[in-house]
Amino acid sequence: MTPSRWIPLIGWLHGYRRDTLARDLLAAVIVTLMLVPQALAYALLAGLPPEVGLYASMLPLVLYAIFGTSATLAVGPVAVASLMTASALSAIAPPGSAEYVGGALVLAALSGAMLVAMGLLRLGFLANFLSHPVISGFVTASGILIAASQLRHLLGVEASGHTLVEMVMALVTALGEVNPITLVLGLGVWGFLVLCRRYLKGGLRRLGLSATVADLVAKAAPVSAVIVTTLLAWALGLGERGVALVGEVPGGLPSLALPSLEPGLWSSLLAPALLISLVGFVESVSVAQTLAAKRRQRIDPNRELIALGLANLGAGASGGSPVSGGFSRSVVNFEAGAATPLAGAFTALGIAVATLTLTAPLAFLPKATLAATIIVAVGTLIDLPAIRRTWAYSRADGVAMLATLTLTLVHGVESGILAGVALSLGLHLYRTSRPHSAVVGRVPGSEHFRNVQRYDEVETDERLAILRVDESLYFANARYLEDTVMALAARQPGLEHIVLACQAVNGIDASALESLEAINRRLKDAGVALHLAEVKGPVMDRLAATDFCHELGGRVFLSTFDAWQALHQENAAANMAPGRMTEKET
Amino acid sequence: MTPSRWIPLIGWLHGYRRDTLARDLLAAVIVTLMLVPQALAYALLAGLPPEVGLYASMLPLVLYAIFGTSATLAVGPVAVASLMTASALSAIAPPGSAEYVGGALVLAALSGAMLVAMGLLRLGFLANFLSHPVISGFVTASGILIAASQLRHLLGVEASGHTLVEMVMALVTALGEVNPITLVLGLGVWGFLVLCRRYLKGGLRRLGLSATVADLVAKAAPVSAVIVTTLLAWALGLGERGVALVGEVPGGLPSLALPSLEPGLWSSLLAPALLISLVGFVESVSVAQTLAAKRRQRIDPNRELIALGLANLGAGASGGSPVSGGFSRSVVNFEAGAATPLAGAFTALGIAVATLTLTAPLAFLPKATLAATIIVAVGTLIDLPAIRRTWAYSRADGVAMLATLTLTLVHGVESGILAGVALSLGLHLYRTSRPHSAVVGRVPGSEHFRNVQRYDEVETDERLAILRVDESLYFANARYLEDTVMALAARQPGLEHIVLACQAVNGIDASALESLEAINRRLKDAGVALHLAEVKGPVMDRLAATDFCHELGGRVFLSTFDAWQALHQENAAANMAPGRMTEKET
Repeated sequence: MTPSRWIPLIGWLHGYRRDTLARDLLAAVIVTLMLVPQALAYALLAGLPPEVGLYASMLPLVLYAIFGTSATLAVGPVAVASLMTASALSAIAPPGSAEYVGGALVLAALSGAMLVAMGLLRLGFLANFLSHPVISGFVTASGILIAASQLRHLLGVEASGHTLVEMVMALVTALGEVNPITLVLGLGVWGFLVLCRRYLKGGLRRLGLSATVADLVAKAAPVSAVIVTTLLAWALGLGERGVALVGEVPGGLPSLALPSLEPGLWSSLLAPALLISLVGFVESVSVAQTLAAKRRQRIDPNRELIALGLANLGAGASGGSPVSGGFSRSVVNFEAGAATPLAGAFTALGIAVATLTLTAPLAFLPKATLAATIIVAVGTLIDLPAIRRTWAYSRADGVAMLATLTLTLVHGVESGILAGVALSLGLHLYRTSRPHSAVVGRVPGSEHFRNVQRYDEVETDERLAILRVDESLYFANARYLEDTVMALAARQPGLEHIVLACQAVNGIDASALESLEAINRRLKDAGVALHLAEVKGPVMDRLAATDFCHELGGRVFLSTFDAWQALHQENAAANMAPGRMTEKET
Repeated sequence: MTPSRWIPLIGWLHGYRRDTLARDLLAAVIVTLMLVPQALAYALLAGLPPEVGLYASMLPLVLYAIFGTSATLAVGPVAVASLMTASALSAIAPPGSAEYVGGALVLAALSGAMLVAMGLLRLGFLANFLSHPVISGFVTASGILIAASQLRHLLGVEASGHTLVEMVMALVTALGEVNPITLVLGLGVWGFLVLCRRYLKGGLRRLGLSATVADLVAKAAPVSAVIVTTLLAWALGLGERGVALVGEVPGGLPSLALPSLEPGLWSSLLAPALLISLVGFVESVSVAQTLAAKRRQRIDPNRELIALGLANLGAGASGGSPVSGGFSRSVVNFEAGAATPLAGAFTALGIAVATLTLTAPLAFLPKATLAATIIVAVGTLIDLPAIRRTWAYSRADGVAMLATLTLTLVHGVESGILAGVALSLGLHLYRTSRPHSAVVGRVPGSEHFRNVQRYDEVETDERLAILRVDESLYFANARYLEDTVMALAARQPGLEHIVLACQAVNGIDASALESLEAINRRLKDAGVALHLAEVKGPVMDRLAATDFCHELGGRVFLSTFDAWQALHQENAAANMAPGRMTEKET
């Protein structure tokens, strides 16, 4: 337990050199240019004042730089967490109220405390409850909801709602009040961003820029849109013409303060905070691992939990909303050459400088510009082909994905993700509750055994049934095993021996052990001996200490072939004509 | 789909003969003698009037006889379901009120509807959520709670509570009001029943009775206690001396009527009805399977769901409380020779006769007698050694069992069982989320591969790592696999090939597929090729249709040895000195 295990910064700061500094500074400048409009946009998306997004982009980044294990993960406000924040807060207070803003800080602090606790207790495995199809369905639905929620800013109307249907209905009824200037401005920015995304990189490369530089410049396109539309709004006085602007942003850095400690508020935000934590963690780790692998580096998921948790606690204590690792900013950070987490700390410095100097001009930034930025950005979240792909690979996973997607759209983010988790668990238990098993027979002259239903030419014995079970035995399939074995015994009247071939059994829990005991007792009552074969070492170690092994009616064989030889020969001695299984002949 | 598939009665009635009739009649007489006091006692336990227990022992038994697949399962009111009924109903109405009694009928009907629906939709696997340790802990705690709840009738005091602590506190404060006659009577019956249970069977056998007959007579001992104490109470006028009696039981058969259809009542009883259904189903199927196996018969769990569901619907429509298969009565039914479900229908007839003729004398039956009967009967539910046994076999299962037991005792039946289910699921996911895996090396000169950490003498190759994964790959362990593989790649700088040996992988779900895709991409970025070996047929069939197989950096080998030969030889050609793994030498 060295200090550098808990504070990775100590480890890498040791070898910090001038060229590393240059790389980190360059990356920080580029990420700052990208983060300023995003911080404002995601605050808008969460229904929060713009400064909350800026505050969430300072202290949290510094804390992550100290405690994080990824060199390139860019922490800060992100789209999905902002949507979830809006959903959680609008259940407790009207948007824009002091309670609403205070709730965002509580949400960040609570989510931070949960992440730190999970990291210390090594509960990162809880994130496993979120299966890939559930996350994918959820993220796609979130992207759609986010885009839909921003259309009102593009149209310049008042319209709100938590589900897709509510949003569309509100937009349709508000269509008469569209502000034409806002619409032109919004569509203009949107078109500009789409064109940049599609052609700018290629164009710059044809002008002789390298692929990386062209890509970075293209990704910074929103900044130019922000500058141009802000200047337009200021020069033409668009605010007086009904175009919604960001408005006054308090200058100066955030002050440190504890968020509200009201127990009622904390308990009502527990569930959303847990979901925001888990989703944020899963997404951050996935981005961080992808980027780390490109440089053959490693991240430590349990350390990441602590670092992300401290970042969120920092957000809650400095007036910010929940943060996590953002996908596009992290990729830009990586491609710009960020070498250490210090790049993130420099980004925080950049945001601080922007907050101190740019709040006056930012007051003129039209909300429609931010909305267009968001709509273009969340396009990358929406992955509809994944539905078809998942469905084709596995019906169960496809159902979980579609259910998550649909429920998120029509019933909100929390019910969507909870239903997805419940369905994943249920379907997993259902799948493993009916494990594949096969009665096997011997391939003549060999030591191999094959499914009697697939291979006609295998040797069988009417007094002996060998059942191969292709799954670990645990509570969800213990009763199915009882059914299967007892059905076998009831079906084959001359049966004297049943061998369970356990080469695919990686574990036997207490429920399955009791089922094996019940099977053994019932088979004894029916005059049939239960044998085991090919039991794995660790599984046998645990079985050996139980009563089951002493009460076992039959024996434990090393291999299926050993069992065949011993039991088949006994039969052969007693009855000189060992036959095929009766049921196959009748 | 023949009628006899849906109505098993058609099948077995066909071959019904006179000697079968004689066996069924004898069994019915004995079970009736046992059921009359039990029906009254379990109604008392559930806080319901005595006739509710009798009504639950008529129509439901007839319906089960028509639709059930077990020849010997004795359906009717049982201890655990009665406790759960009391717990559910006391949350909605004061005991003894019309709403309370009406609620019992709704609970039966609701539970019946759920069981039928589960049977038709083949959702019997839902019962798998209840692992053996959870059920065992729950049943033990229920036995303790039931015994504690009956102590007040033995002492003749008013004291109630839902948790063990509440019950004990209420009893202690009421100790001053103990009715001495009740106490003497209750302790007398209790002592008599305990002595019968311990010595009667042996004594009767020494008198020359056969083991089976001696056992059946011993099991009917409560009837004599009922007769004797009823006569005593009548002759000595114990009712006037403060001994609580059963009191007036309405004569006549129940009338058929729909239970209350108030939506509020139904929705508030949904969760308890589901738990009663699942617990009752699990216990019934377990008893039925055990008994069926002794005669090499089969029961069909999905048909059982429908039969038990119809029995409960019948209970709800004829003034009865929830029913399920009782363990001790079923064993008696079996040992008395019941040959077909008709024995159950005859038992219903016996109860009907008792209800028509015995209600006048039963009014004098002391409640203390019933309480003593219950206390002695639930002794068989309490299995404390199972805790130690389970704990010794598996910590995780032991924790789930203890949590269920403790929470049931201190917080009530519903929280106990729900916490147990949640914990079982969580612990199962935790266990499978960190599957056993091992880097393996070749046993020199053979085609076998062994864990390099356990065997020193295996051959390895610094450019090639073979990882054997001992678990199916699914969402709970997909990310762990990513971690493990990427750690391997980061640890071994000269690595060029990673082979995943998949002989223990019985399935790969969509999450795991995405993780494999991510691993493959990341390894490619790091200059390492990912190969697969020993992929099972069904798993390969599904993988073959995905993009993953086309994008795979390496190849798919039939066996680990094939992979070793191909990749190790390539290395050998490029570098004439294939070495041991670097990390083992440093």
